[in-house]
Amino acid sequence: METPIVMSYQEIQDFATKTLTSFGLIEQHAIEIADSISRCERDDCKSHGLHRLLMCIASIRSGEVNQKCQLQLDRISNSLLKIDAQNTLSPIAFNRAKKQFVDSVKSQGIAAMAINNCLHFSALWTETEDLVSHDIACMICLPSHAWVAPYGATGPLLGTNPLAFGWPRSEGAEPFIFDFATSASARGEIELHARDKTPIPLGWAIDAEGSDTTNAESALRGAMRTFGAHKGSALSIMIELLAGPLIGDLLSHESIKKAPENGCAPLHGELILGFCPQKFDSFGFVDNHQRAENFFFEMERLGARLPSSRRYKARKKSVSQGIKVDPQLLDIIHKLLNEN
Amino acid sequence: METPIVMSYQEIQDFATKTLTSFGLIEQHAIEIADSISRCERDDCKSHGLHRLLMCIASIRSGEVNQKCQLQLDRISNSLLKIDAQNTLSPIAFNRAKKQFVDSVKSQGIAAMAINNCLHFSALWTETEDLVSHDIACMICLPSHAWVAPYGATGPLLGTNPLAFGWPRSEGAEPFIFDFATSASARGEIELHARDKTPIPLGWAIDAEGSDTTNAESALRGAMRTFGAHKGSALSIMIELLAGPLIGDLLSHESIKKAPENGCAPLHGELILGFCPQKFDSFGFVDNHQRAENFFFEMERLGARLPSSRRYKARKKSVSQGIKVDPQLLDIIHKLLNEN
Repeated sequence: METPIVMSYQEIQDFATKTLTSFGLIEQHAIEIADSISRCERDDCKSHGLHRLLMCIASIRSGEVNQKCQLQLDRISNSLLKIDAQNTLSPIAFNRAKKQFVDSVKSQGIAAMAINNCLHFSALWTETEDLVSHDIACMICLPSHAWVAPYGATGPLLGTNPLAFGWPRSEGAEPFIFDFATSASARGEIELHARDKTPIPLGWAIDAEGSDTTNAESALRGAMRTFGAHKGSALSIMIELLAGPLIGDLLSHESIKKAPENGCAPLHGELILGFCPQKFDSFGFVDNHQRAENFFFEMERLGARLPSSRRYKARKKSVSQGIKVDPQLLDIIHKLLNEN
Repeated sequence: METPIVMSYQEIQDFATKTLTSFGLIEQHAIEIADSISRCERDDCKSHGLHRLLMCIASIRSGEVNQKCQLQLDRISNSLLKIDAQNTLSPIAFNRAKKQFVDSVKSQGIAAMAINNCLHFSALWTETEDLVSHDIACMICLPSHAWVAPYGATGPLLGTNPLAFGWPRSEGAEPFIFDFATSASARGEIELHARDKTPIPLGWAIDAEGSDTTNAESALRGAMRTFGAHKGSALSIMIELLAGPLIGDLLSHESIKKAPENGCAPLHGELILGFCPQKFDSFGFVDNHQRAENFFFEMERLGARLPSSRRYKARKKSVSQGIKVDPQLLDIIHKLLNEN
């Protein structure tokens, strides 16, 4: 690998914004997308960092991305909101609806928000962090494209179906946040093994005949496995149902059939649940909060690393030393810009 | 093993009810607990069947079980209900609150119910099935006693923390329901290996020093592992937070410290979330429902077994051929009854 190029957060954000507007995206949308991408690049979450510009560019080029949307929040009940993203890229609808969703969670104790018809490219932890910053807990899930086999199945049906969860912590402590795919590995990891012609670990995938395989090429033609055998599979199925049929949106096997071409962001829905600890138990809130803090303290005392701690560490380093960006990726994006 | 004794559902229910009232439980509570136990025994879910009478008896004998409770549902908002179980056994509070919870889910689209201070011995799938029979989807979770190590930790902090989910299906099809512990195995399984002096599979547990072990005795002195490495661990932590501090109730490591003696039902809370598909998308509901059905059909076509299918099969067999009960277990219960 070549020596990484060091950029500031602002430089990355400006570069991502300019790239997106060069491909025709309106500036307001470009800024919001660049924001999501820059946060991931800063936190060493490279899969959803500048690399994701390629997915956004592919989606814009395919003509899928709606730029003339007039997004409107639909309030079904005091605790249930819906927003139709109208084929815009993922952060757009979330950002429009965020404030009203937080208000609903705080007034009702629990609320759900369904985002429909969204072109999804972003990491769920950024949205989770945004919500948790308002002192609410939240859970977010969504389907993707059918690349993953349910436990015991011989072919793909499920998406990589991420689940994210956030819990607000005391002033000074980073929030408790996890964001994981329910697939045994990321598809991108298998693609890297295929490129390098190296074997993948047993348990990651099956071939097109439904047999276990360590061959990355065979895995890409077959299906990935879920994490955690039948339990991870059950969780992934739950995510399909909640962020699919429940909210009137596509399942992963339906989404993949509608996709215009490889490399574009998948079109589907997203379900967000919010919980307000103050409302759930207003009298006991201070004690509850402290008991949760003690629980995290115990976890670290026993040697466990809290989820996201690697990301928070990378963030600190990025702020003090700048952000290391892959020069090869920058070359690819510059080439696309020159050809445009 | 001796030849099993075959009993009818009614015989099991009567036997369980009489046993519980013999130990001093009021009849109405005994009937509701017997109902939960009999359903599990019928569905070959033996761990939560008649075996659980031992846990209920231990709790009653310890003096923990409150029989003079006046349970009252507390409505915090249109979508948030709380019920204080006041140290009654688990089905009691759930049954009192069920109808009003279903009504809230149907009117708001989403609702949460927190059960506090509950002595928990029952399987979550029975409650899930009850809720799903009202055409709502639901998710249920709760902590237990701290027997499980968070990923990377050298000692126990988490409970076996089960997660259950249900989705209503078309007339004639059994509902989609899963109910799994977030521990890698059941504690009872390790206890059986310890009794039989057989090794446990690697990955189930760590010893008291935090090292992997296949020795069942060492595992019982150490800690169980979660399923699915860091992802299962994250899920288990989420359950602790949601069904603990969020609702103003105990974490698993707090619950185990309060337990009067071994063998009693753990005291803690429970969180139930309900989702009404008709309310989430009233216009698209018929299509959404059918797409979920197609999804299940595809899953089975690809060779996957739906969760709970083993239980539904056992139920059919029990109805036609009676329920096989372990005579050794009956002997133990009869002995306890004679000593009483």
